[in-house]
Amino acid sequence: MNSTKLVNVTRGNLIESSHKGHIAVVDAKGQLLYYAGDPNAVIFARSSMKPIQAIPVVETGAADHYEFSDADLSICCASHNGENMHTDRVVSMLSRAGMEDVCLKCGTHIPRWQDTYKELILAGKDVTPLYNNCSGKHSGMLVTAKHMNEPLENYYDLDHPVQQRILAAVSEMTEYPKEEIEIGIDGCGVPVHGLPLERLAYGYARMAQPDGLPETRQSAIKQITKAMVTAPEMVGGTERFCTDFMRVGQGRFIGKAGAEGVYCVGDLETGIGIAIKIEDGNARAAYPATMEVLKQLQLVTDQQIEELIKYYRPKLRNARNEEIGELIADFQLHSAPALKN
Amino acid sequence: MNSTKLVNVTRGNLIESSHKGHIAVVDAKGQLLYYAGDPNAVIFARSSMKPIQAIPVVETGAADHYEFSDADLSICCASHNGENMHTDRVVSMLSRAGMEDVCLKCGTHIPRWQDTYKELILAGKDVTPLYNNCSGKHSGMLVTAKHMNEPLENYYDLDHPVQQRILAAVSEMTEYPKEEIEIGIDGCGVPVHGLPLERLAYGYARMAQPDGLPETRQSAIKQITKAMVTAPEMVGGTERFCTDFMRVGQGRFIGKAGAEGVYCVGDLETGIGIAIKIEDGNARAAYPATMEVLKQLQLVTDQQIEELIKYYRPKLRNARNEEIGELIADFQLHSAPALKN
Repeated sequence: MNSTKLVNVTRGNLIESSHKGHIAVVDAKGQLLYYAGDPNAVIFARSSMKPIQAIPVVETGAADHYEFSDADLSICCASHNGENMHTDRVVSMLSRAGMEDVCLKCGTHIPRWQDTYKELILAGKDVTPLYNNCSGKHSGMLVTAKHMNEPLENYYDLDHPVQQRILAAVSEMTEYPKEEIEIGIDGCGVPVHGLPLERLAYGYARMAQPDGLPETRQSAIKQITKAMVTAPEMVGGTERFCTDFMRVGQGRFIGKAGAEGVYCVGDLETGIGIAIKIEDGNARAAYPATMEVLKQLQLVTDQQIEELIKYYRPKLRNARNEEIGELIADFQLHSAPALKN
Repeated sequence: MNSTKLVNVTRGNLIESSHKGHIAVVDAKGQLLYYAGDPNAVIFARSSMKPIQAIPVVETGAADHYEFSDADLSICCASHNGENMHTDRVVSMLSRAGMEDVCLKCGTHIPRWQDTYKELILAGKDVTPLYNNCSGKHSGMLVTAKHMNEPLENYYDLDHPVQQRILAAVSEMTEYPKEEIEIGIDGCGVPVHGLPLERLAYGYARMAQPDGLPETRQSAIKQITKAMVTAPEMVGGTERFCTDFMRVGQGRFIGKAGAEGVYCVGDLETGIGIAIKIEDGNARAAYPATMEVLKQLQLVTDQQIEELIKYYRPKLRNARNEEIGELIADFQLHSAPALKN
């Protein structure tokens, strides 16, 4: 099935650019409820998988053993800004497990948070893996390996027990066969998981409503979702959609972005899972599309939409700070065919 | 007509993202030769219009009066990196006309060139409009206004003679009625021009082969294209496609990017003009698409493709610098229907 238009980018009176993509809305029983484009498109979840990737951190007992707070567990699910609150927390988690930032194999990139970058330059310091937006996830992996007495040097290899536990959890949560999950390598060097969009949405539905799963899994999931909504500033940071969305949701939603235009939401109230893929990979369209889905499904109030308006209808400004256009979601969800039983 | 797929983005064995768009290939008589997607799509040319916007700088006599070198005229056509060579040149042009950087109304953004940014931070200096990638174009506009004894404060307004001369040149070069050109506001605050893609390609064809135009126009165009190919480092800078493409072309091609995924080429040898619009606005797809068009039209040699391979088939690397995917052009140009009339 083809992708469908999701978001327009206007400038003056013209639609200057537009973003196509796919959307799947699935309930906690695995039933596709609504869609746009192709809900079966096979996509890499990228960082949207992080909340599921955090399950073994809890289930192995590592989180308990190293006394992980909500903020600690939340940053395991993060693509963070590299603000001080983030890097301080990663250092703290690693040190509690007797490790240092040199153990992180996520590689380096310029921190998203400009102030951090400026501070590093002014201090004549190099950018370290600590500032990588995935350093929280990597710390969760490292701490788990340490707790399980597994090798620390190669925790990112697909055949390392850390990654095998994650692969099993991804397969179980999405009910998608392990051997059919496409494996790629992420920006931070660990395996990423390719699967149909509606399976990813299903994974989020079950994160939101884990009833029926084994007790230990239910408990782990509830710890993770509580951590994310309690410490949403760890999942993204200042001026980030994930953080502001969960804050405005007041505990009802978990939400996580993935690179190349992925966004996923789990609604803890209805058990609905939403997965969105912008076909061209541009994150700028993922937020308006997410908000539009929530609006069409009446999962958010007008007040919440208003509080998140800068993500729902972002204004484009030029270098003189004048408004010159905006992003506007432009699609209608389709009801999925009736239950297959 | 719909857009068509132009470039895939792979990760492992999957196509992770893909970019659709439109292409028009037009000769200097205005005949559409080849296309992909919709060659009549109305798009904002953005910075790809800069070589045409430079015409009045020459035709008014401003370039001669202030002794513009090739490098000066080239940077009038630039979206530059903000390297020292660029900002020094802009300062020099302005000072020859008795002006300073405070006259520039392009606003500020972080310079593209990271080293410049780091130097500014370390020196405790603010980013000024000088570092805006459009400061060369703005200097050309300012110097023209000065030479013509026109107001300097509002040179960016559509009804200022500077912008009206540009609008006339755009209309003449593309043979598209002035009143049908859509006007938006660019990232740097000046008017941008919306018109059918094939008209933009035609504009580039005539820049490449101006025969038949009035003598003064021909002469101005030849000065501009000579400037661009003689000083290509001014048009972009270090590690920029525009610069490397023109360098490898050894005087045969002019090429200029525009924001939101636009790229245009003029082939001075055949008089062919090419205009490309990536529908979703992502520049990363514009370079592979441009190279693929040149390859399919056999306008570049295998050797030239090899020298530009990092733009034709860019490798994606993760934060550990491992190759994890690549961008690959995936389309076939269609021959346009035979000549009308």
